[in-house]
Amino acid sequence: MSASRPAAAVRVPIELGERSYEILIGERVLDDPASYDGLPRAASAMVVSNPTVSALYGARLHAMLEGRFARVLHVDMPDGEAHKDWASLDRIFDALLAQACDRKSVLFALGGGVVGDVAGFAAACYMRGVPFVQVPTTLLAQVDSSVGGKTAINHPRGKNMIGAFHQPLRVIADLGVLDTLPERELGAGLAEVIKYGPIADAAFLDWVESHLDALLARDKAALAHAVRRSCELKAAVVGADERESGLRAILNYGHTFGHAIEAALGYGEWLHGEAVGCGMVMAADLSARLGLVPQAFVERMRRLVARARLPVAAPASIGAGRFVELMRVDKKAEGGEIRFVLIEAPGRAVQRAAPDALVRQTIAACSA
Amino acid sequence: MSASRPAAAVRVPIELGERSYEILIGERVLDDPASYDGLPRAASAMVVSNPTVSALYGARLHAMLEGRFARVLHVDMPDGEAHKDWASLDRIFDALLAQACDRKSVLFALGGGVVGDVAGFAAACYMRGVPFVQVPTTLLAQVDSSVGGKTAINHPRGKNMIGAFHQPLRVIADLGVLDTLPERELGAGLAEVIKYGPIADAAFLDWVESHLDALLARDKAALAHAVRRSCELKAAVVGADERESGLRAILNYGHTFGHAIEAALGYGEWLHGEAVGCGMVMAADLSARLGLVPQAFVERMRRLVARARLPVAAPASIGAGRFVELMRVDKKAEGGEIRFVLIEAPGRAVQRAAPDALVRQTIAACSA
Repeated sequence: MSASRPAAAVRVPIELGERSYEILIGERVLDDPASYDGLPRAASAMVVSNPTVSALYGARLHAMLEGRFARVLHVDMPDGEAHKDWASLDRIFDALLAQACDRKSVLFALGGGVVGDVAGFAAACYMRGVPFVQVPTTLLAQVDSSVGGKTAINHPRGKNMIGAFHQPLRVIADLGVLDTLPERELGAGLAEVIKYGPIADAAFLDWVESHLDALLARDKAALAHAVRRSCELKAAVVGADERESGLRAILNYGHTFGHAIEAALGYGEWLHGEAVGCGMVMAADLSARLGLVPQAFVERMRRLVARARLPVAAPASIGAGRFVELMRVDKKAEGGEIRFVLIEAPGRAVQRAAPDALVRQTIAACSA
Repeated sequence: MSASRPAAAVRVPIELGERSYEILIGERVLDDPASYDGLPRAASAMVVSNPTVSALYGARLHAMLEGRFARVLHVDMPDGEAHKDWASLDRIFDALLAQACDRKSVLFALGGGVVGDVAGFAAACYMRGVPFVQVPTTLLAQVDSSVGGKTAINHPRGKNMIGAFHQPLRVIADLGVLDTLPERELGAGLAEVIKYGPIADAAFLDWVESHLDALLARDKAALAHAVRRSCELKAAVVGADERESGLRAILNYGHTFGHAIEAALGYGEWLHGEAVGCGMVMAADLSARLGLVPQAFVERMRRLVARARLPVAAPASIGAGRFVELMRVDKKAEGGEIRFVLIEAPGRAVQRAAPDALVRQTIAACSA
């Protein structure tokens, strides 16, 4: 850590009435006291993290919190999607109760999407709701899971099935922490960056295509733009539909296929972003089979996903029958009908059902 | 069941903006098709109950739902406060997922406070929130736990520590079902009825004193007034403070002491209403020690609670030290300070801290 003052953060406002908040994006925002201005004064702060991230960044976050809270507590949950479960949630509740944390206590989620989702859901439920701050340390969490207030744990029968909408007070997205991110997780985060172009911004899809090498090289200027634009696009969608009654569903592009892959393989076998990457190719393929986009768009998606070092084919071992069945129990299904997020043109998504035969053709064409 | 048409229900509106709903109160509202008018059309209804209540009233509720929903599913959880836990919650999630219930599914909580709290919390979390209807079958649930949207499960370290605010679409409070309520549970419900007078309505306290024998005899006219007025008083408080930032806390009169008794004995040993009954006497005693009310008010509360066949003394075996410690981890505590709901005059409550020495005097004076 250098002693120089961090550069001013980019601030992306999320407009949700009295639940509005800001995303601070920048290279050293974690160490900038200004990043913590205006947070509530409370007796206790509880940092929720995992052992890997704690070792890397725990001390830096604690240093910033120690002047602001009488007690700065800490609980680590095991790393990985497989631990996005009740046991991890209960570990947080147990730590909060063992330390007699009251309902003004502030939780800080320091980690990736799993930590953010579990800590956020813990904050939503502890004493029926305490405030929390997201400090996302993966690209995926910075561009996706830390924005929009969705929190959840997995259930053995389905991903993200148990959860709540609970908005953070703030998101502190430090681009510097991405330097320690494993290659595979960087790619998984890029899947969600890639997602925003096809569903909402054709120009951003072009930009991602021309800057993918810079992003893979962790160029800070490229990352800053990618994170900012992803958050802006997600914020616009979430602001229009906080509780996911309609429009917000387009953010699930690639997720219906992706969740089925994750569920079939067992959560954690593929990273979420890897499944989404493959799922976007499959959803593009289904869009083409329905005549919405030309085959060239499918190839464009496949090429971009592959360049991000993400899988473009689902494991053939899943089998079409089980694949379809897993999609049917997904949250997006209604009355047993699977609602796919499909692309009509770069930058424009639509949600609709599809004939079973075409879905099976897509599964066959996109499995290996 | 007679074939005659049920009498028109009393309707108590709960004004909460877009989350507003009605409580229907009457002798046969469970069997009145009009009670179900306007509920959303959905593919699936899931009735959550327990084996005792299911055997008594399950068929009647199913009969009303079967014309309205394509599938009417059912899951029973074990009876009793000891089962207000994650295992019961997960049983509901498992039933919903095993039947591929989507996020438009409507849950019906058929039972007492435990079923209502657990089913309500399940509805709050399943797929991040599905609608639910309360069909309370105990007096306690009709006058208290089905009104106001508080849902929760217990944690080994504390009661109602994990939960959510989730308003029902409607409450269907059938007075006829109270005929099968065990004596002890009737008394427990009366504790909450007794509560509303001291905190919010001196005239209602007078009314309860003069009609307690009729209420104990399950006179329907007396019950109708008691349930209606209790709901009205609670509705006024909840409407002014949905998320319990201030005023709503007065509804916890008797609960700080009561929760400590429940926690010390192990949940389910005393019924919640029994602990609240004793807790109200203790809170009145503490109010007198602080000079807020005369000793005569304490005796008035003690007499009324005793007439309702509720305990008026805590088990001496708890010990003052443990008693205070348990109150300190209660949700109402803030920064380690216990906030008591105290009475200033019949019909007027205040929330404040109290010197430790006086609290210990109250515990000593009200234990046996």
